[in-house]
Amino acid sequence: MTALPSDRLAAQFAFLNEADRLKSVLRATTLCDGSRRENSGEHSWHLGLYAMVLADQAGPGVDITRVIRMLLIHDLVEIDVGDVPIHSANGQAHASAETQAAEQRAADRIFGLLPPDQAASFRALWDEFEAAESPDALFAKSLDRVQPVMANLQSGGGTWITYNVTLPQLEARVGSKIAKGAPRLWDWVRARVTPFFAS
Amino acid sequence: MTALPSDRLAAQFAFLNEADRLKSVLRATTLCDGSRRENSGEHSWHLGLYAMVLADQAGPGVDITRVIRMLLIHDLVEIDVGDVPIHSANGQAHASAETQAAEQRAADRIFGLLPPDQAASFRALWDEFEAAESPDALFAKSLDRVQPVMANLQSGGGTWITYNVTLPQLEARVGSKIAKGAPRLWDWVRARVTPFFAS
Repeated sequence: MTALPSDRLAAQFAFLNEADRLKSVLRATTLCDGSRRENSGEHSWHLGLYAMVLADQAGPGVDITRVIRMLLIHDLVEIDVGDVPIHSANGQAHASAETQAAEQRAADRIFGLLPPDQAASFRALWDEFEAAESPDALFAKSLDRVQPVMANLQSGGGTWITYNVTLPQLEARVGSKIAKGAPRLWDWVRARVTPFFAS
Repeated sequence: MTALPSDRLAAQFAFLNEADRLKSVLRATTLCDGSRRENSGEHSWHLGLYAMVLADQAGPGVDITRVIRMLLIHDLVEIDVGDVPIHSANGQAHASAETQAAEQRAADRIFGLLPPDQAASFRALWDEFEAAESPDALFAKSLDRVQPVMANLQSGGGTWITYNVTLPQLEARVGSKIAKGAPRLWDWVRARVTPFFAS
């Protein structure tokens, strides 16, 4: 049985209205001017723009339009689970089975609001991002890691100060992941980050 | 002369850092839960998601990936010009030569931060959105109009109450524009909006 067109729209708007809540999920990182914490909705927008602008940093085989779509949905599970700051103690235990199970339940619920065909395709895209194996996912992950670095540089340290982060820690937690999907990008960013940690 | 790769990245990040300011531009519309006013950054993210989800409402010849890109950049000029609420007195005079000139200057400045090839392509995409003539731009405009309607429905009236909006005014200012790019979508939304104005 095919859903009536009006049922389809009802499901689509149930999802879009629920997605609105991502604007109320706060991240540890602030805006570039340091005025307030960033939320995961505007962060996702900024990452879409990052993908558009930094497309020429992507490796071979990367489809930027898929990367943009992936980044627009990558944080939706935070509506249920919240953001886990990468430099926090929980962030270091991010791969815990408990966190992963909670994110899977959130993905079931949130993508499950969509009509079945879209629920499946959005979920597959999110699963691909989480798996961090495909060229598209690796590039998307690199952008997700580099954007807070730029915010911290602009705001005078941000979460590096909050969590007493050292340059070797930044290299391990962030730099290595940026380098995986966008090596030249990390070279450029590292050169700008190093003076901050030396000062 | 071709720019050095590092100069190119410097220009790209100058643009991406400047874009961050869109997160501080407030719109008249609130979040769906009414808790605070929405900013133009998170609004742009939500619209990217709208395009992904409502793609099947687009007319023939619409390229959804272009629509998504268009929506991610459509409000950047507001960094300089601010948001003009559609139901405000200024909103009704939105097509004024003065406003248009200010938006053109903002586009010159903001897209001009990018490397020349990207400055040209981003600007062309924004010009196309503003012209509201191509199938992609008409669909993007429809989504930009429908998203605040859904927020107002969720939040109990929102800007319709702020600005004493009547159903005929909503039809003229919003409905006619949604219908232009997505006629079936407006039929569905109008049926849900009508009871609000009848009450």
